[in-house]
Amino acid sequence: MIAVDVNGADDPRAAAEGAAASGIDVLVFGPAKDLKGIDAEVVDAPVSIAKAADAARAARSTPDASIVLAARAVAEGRADALVAGGSTGTALAAGLFNIKRGKGIHRPALALPLPVPGAPVTLLDVGANELCRPEHLVQFAYMGAALATTVLGVERPRVGLLSNGTEPEKGREEVVEAHERLRAMDGFVGNVEGFAITEGVADVIVTDGFTGNVTLKVLEATSQTMIAAVRRAAMSSPKAKLGGALLRPALRSLRTEIDPEAQGGAYLLGLRRLAVVPHGSFSAEGWAEAVRRAARGVTEDVVGRTHAALDGAGALRRVPASDAATSL
Amino acid sequence: MIAVDVNGADDPRAAAEGAAASGIDVLVFGPAKDLKGIDAEVVDAPVSIAKAADAARAARSTPDASIVLAARAVAEGRADALVAGGSTGTALAAGLFNIKRGKGIHRPALALPLPVPGAPVTLLDVGANELCRPEHLVQFAYMGAALATTVLGVERPRVGLLSNGTEPEKGREEVVEAHERLRAMDGFVGNVEGFAITEGVADVIVTDGFTGNVTLKVLEATSQTMIAAVRRAAMSSPKAKLGGALLRPALRSLRTEIDPEAQGGAYLLGLRRLAVVPHGSFSAEGWAEAVRRAARGVTEDVVGRTHAALDGAGALRRVPASDAATSL
Repeated sequence: MIAVDVNGADDPRAAAEGAAASGIDVLVFGPAKDLKGIDAEVVDAPVSIAKAADAARAARSTPDASIVLAARAVAEGRADALVAGGSTGTALAAGLFNIKRGKGIHRPALALPLPVPGAPVTLLDVGANELCRPEHLVQFAYMGAALATTVLGVERPRVGLLSNGTEPEKGREEVVEAHERLRAMDGFVGNVEGFAITEGVADVIVTDGFTGNVTLKVLEATSQTMIAAVRRAAMSSPKAKLGGALLRPALRSLRTEIDPEAQGGAYLLGLRRLAVVPHGSFSAEGWAEAVRRAARGVTEDVVGRTHAALDGAGALRRVPASDAATSL
Repeated sequence: MIAVDVNGADDPRAAAEGAAASGIDVLVFGPAKDLKGIDAEVVDAPVSIAKAADAARAARSTPDASIVLAARAVAEGRADALVAGGSTGTALAAGLFNIKRGKGIHRPALALPLPVPGAPVTLLDVGANELCRPEHLVQFAYMGAALATTVLGVERPRVGLLSNGTEPEKGREEVVEAHERLRAMDGFVGNVEGFAITEGVADVIVTDGFTGNVTLKVLEATSQTMIAAVRRAAMSSPKAKLGGALLRPALRSLRTEIDPEAQGGAYLLGLRRLAVVPHGSFSAEGWAEAVRRAARGVTEDVVGRTHAALDGAGALRRVPASDAATSL
């Protein structure tokens, strides 16, 4: 069973329809009055905090918010994973307070599979943690690898550490230190540069949330600008217009290849259960894919396998005895 | 007079020809045997350290390297600015040791005008400083603004600070602190996100060298990947091929718009004289443009105007009295 909060969707009804059509059992949280006739169990949850300015405060102070109710359903075992669209910040806050961090996890991270033509790559963290210590980056590496194996269909993920040069000694201090600790990791390919986003040299790229956020937005802005420039070129003369019309079907298949909806959305890793955050603008099909990905994460036990990999690598957070009761 | 080291060029002779054809007086440093008949004063300097693995060490230990000789010509007043292609690391090292940091400058920075279609933007630092304190970022802002005004033809540059959100409190600690200190700056537009690279909301974008380096490479990789994907689409069927052929002239003008050679290369700011670093692959025309830009920097006094702006803003580095003799 997957708990699905549709309140952050641009079109909550379409999101609920997608969830219902996913082929997976879902428990839908959203405004029941807008969700009549949906072929799934609906919990009336009209209060939305998807657009709250201070996500952490909203998640704490709004117990009847749909995302909080959905996260609690997961925390209490009524559902096995969370799908919550629209705001990654709100999903992160509600997830942290209700589903809670996994045992031995320092910080949850947001992972985003990037729809790069020909060479998909998953980037994490894309914004949950502005500043990262080496042990955070190390955990992100294992978390990203486990996601790739279980949910994204990459059998032996190659994991790179984003830096300003490929040499191990290149980069901020925390990157150099994380590199050292990751040497022993299966599939670790060392430092990679910004080029690696499209080069196909890594399936998972690890960085802090500041750099990841900038990277993601530069990538989005650049590809949109290039597409717009090609479109403009194709309007610049009658000859170019004809050329554009003839080229359009071929470009449409490129568009499918770089469609973010095919990837389900962003993945919130490091909680006790998996959470998937489809973009608010996703169509019903994008929401359905997010639900299927979440279900795959449950079946393939992404959380358990992440824990086992971290444990095997000695990369779990050690909890001081005095702290153990409160630090979950 | 501009000192031009052509040893880092893929084709040193073409680089020298470009320099000679720039319409500016140049002093060319390179292998005289390959530069016969060039219409400019040539200093025989066959030793190249453009590909040295450790640029700083090579620049210190190779007094007869062409870049060192060219930088010394600038330091000694035989030339007014430096153009040295190929390696920004080597130019930075040779510049620091010979031309030296400007008075009150914490750290030199590398600024790169990005050839974004329709909305050119200058990014700095793109790799000279992995870790930046707030006062470094503040100086970069004024250095970038002065470059934009004097050399790049932007009358009133808008300066943004790269972060993971537009709110002043967003970002790494040093970014938040730099934002606070930049509030009073003319033209400061606040924090900008990765999207700003193509949005046209700032003429100058300030960041640390780690983030700048990643940003630059993500931008390059993404635009090349998009171009390659469009090209692939245009080969995918006879109809698409015809469309591509008809569209080609219009796309060529886009290509001109995003041609990095038109920007002269990277700019090394914060030394006592301006240095311009064209890419090693630039054609003669790219080298000529680099020389013209360097000359414009001299005429428009980019160094003096940077100093005056920093002084006016109280952003010059204060040198402890005991330190003053050695810290230049």
